[in-house]
Amino acid sequence: MSIAEAGEFGLIARIVARLDISPATILGPGDDAAVVVAPDGRVVASTDVLVEGRHFRRDWSSGADVGHRAAAANLADIAAMGATPTALLVALCVPVDLDVGWVEDLAGGLSAEAGVVGASVVGGDMSSSPTLTVAVTALGDLRGAAPVLRGGAQPGDVVALAGRTGYAAAGYAVLSRGFRTPKLFVEAFRRPEVPYAAGADAARLGATSMIDVSDGLLQDLGHVATASVVGIDVRRDAFEIPDQMRDAASALGVDPYLWILAGGDDHALAATFPPSVRLPPEWRVVGAVHEGTGVTVDRRPWSGGTGWDHFK
Amino acid sequence: MSIAEAGEFGLIARIVARLDISPATILGPGDDAAVVVAPDGRVVASTDVLVEGRHFRRDWSSGADVGHRAAAANLADIAAMGATPTALLVALCVPVDLDVGWVEDLAGGLSAEAGVVGASVVGGDMSSSPTLTVAVTALGDLRGAAPVLRGGAQPGDVVALAGRTGYAAAGYAVLSRGFRTPKLFVEAFRRPEVPYAAGADAARLGATSMIDVSDGLLQDLGHVATASVVGIDVRRDAFEIPDQMRDAASALGVDPYLWILAGGDDHALAATFPPSVRLPPEWRVVGAVHEGTGVTVDRRPWSGGTGWDHFK
Repeated sequence: MSIAEAGEFGLIARIVARLDISPATILGPGDDAAVVVAPDGRVVASTDVLVEGRHFRRDWSSGADVGHRAAAANLADIAAMGATPTALLVALCVPVDLDVGWVEDLAGGLSAEAGVVGASVVGGDMSSSPTLTVAVTALGDLRGAAPVLRGGAQPGDVVALAGRTGYAAAGYAVLSRGFRTPKLFVEAFRRPEVPYAAGADAARLGATSMIDVSDGLLQDLGHVATASVVGIDVRRDAFEIPDQMRDAASALGVDPYLWILAGGDDHALAATFPPSVRLPPEWRVVGAVHEGTGVTVDRRPWSGGTGWDHFK
Repeated sequence: MSIAEAGEFGLIARIVARLDISPATILGPGDDAAVVVAPDGRVVASTDVLVEGRHFRRDWSSGADVGHRAAAANLADIAAMGATPTALLVALCVPVDLDVGWVEDLAGGLSAEAGVVGASVVGGDMSSSPTLTVAVTALGDLRGAAPVLRGGAQPGDVVALAGRTGYAAAGYAVLSRGFRTPKLFVEAFRRPEVPYAAGADAARLGATSMIDVSDGLLQDLGHVATASVVGIDVRRDAFEIPDQMRDAASALGVDPYLWILAGGDDHALAATFPPSVRLPPEWRVVGAVHEGTGVTVDRRPWSGGTGWDHFK
């Protein structure tokens, strides 16, 4: 059944049927607005938009995959502030000939990914559009912690990473060449595995800065360096390249460090900590903060690309 | 200058320069997420999306107009819960050949409309897209009040309206026929005048239900009737038709009550109150709640159309 056949209210009913409601939801979908708990007295909020053909392709990702990824991209931003996600709102623009099942799967994916962190989809809006577009807003609660900003890194801090990088970029690369394997990377592109809890953990541990690695590690650390007015050096030997990644990179004629250092969409978290902090295993040191500016790799400028500009 | 020439970060800088920051903003644009006050311990949140060609046309509305309207549509949803808006987040999808000035004007319009209620734009995201799309999320605070839902109307309640209806529909109608006047209606379509404060006032006065009139009075009261399991009757003689509207309707061969009862986009607020409540002048009675189902006009079914389905 197409969306035109289902009609606006029929489609909304089908979407709502796919949503689970978390305890953080005081009032869910169906009224003019939702009401969500904000026990801290402050609310953390972030918006990310995915556009078909730009951020996803329907022949590469299912509706559920896109739902997982759209939710993950936003929930990671909340985690990167040191907050715990509570809710998602979704603005969905759909071609009228799109199959209703695709949208139901999208809703299921959004709800399932939100459920990973105990959040849920509490509201949204829909419109027809020639361009399939999913804009998600995530809300979160700081639970008494100070938000961890990009601008607090200090010379002498260590740079640490939670989660993985290069996996989604490798998946994107193999999909771009018409392959569907290795599954490990294709699945990483379709549904990022975000270390959500590491964000609030980092806030408790005293992280001086934190960022969601969405555009590529070097580019995102560049934002930290600029905001903090420091230099950052990343060590390549801090990254172990899995055999499967080495093989895929070799097959495609690519330097695997390009994926690891400049690939986006895995939504790892990068943070800086005072050197005295004892880091739990989820956070591994990959570099150091020094006086200066910019980001270097093994103390030298990196010339292999640093992530993307969404308008280039 | 086109957006492609400005680049993503250049464009963001230009947008941020157009934004005012309200006292409700703890952390504004520039980090992974924004932080906004939520003193009530609950946050009200709503999302609305505007798509070029569907909700606005660039030859009918300036960037600033679209900004005002996108903000107003969302802020009205917060007001319709009885809450006070605190912040907006904006997901913007733009064709790369769009002029940067249009986007700057959009940002200025969003910020100015938010400023009317003491809120501000605290964050967002941007992507290129073939379809110009503005998705806005509004946040608000209940200040200790219970949210006013759609489902609380009781038989015997009065139905009251704050703000105007039919003006934006009249503006849309004259623009559709290629006219640019009467200014009164064209401007109402471009920039709705929303009675924001009436929302929180209604909550304090004991409104039993409330809704933002975005799709048309009869259709939106239909949502109240359904959610409350009541019938609603609207009296035509409660509406005074301004001479300019009568003239415009006559010139276009339209029944002006079609605009008033079924026209959307003015973002009036409709609420129900117990008959004992003394209403301030901003709220005028336009009907009554009775046992039964559905919405009638002067006790008869209305056959002139009841608002729109976004997928038809």
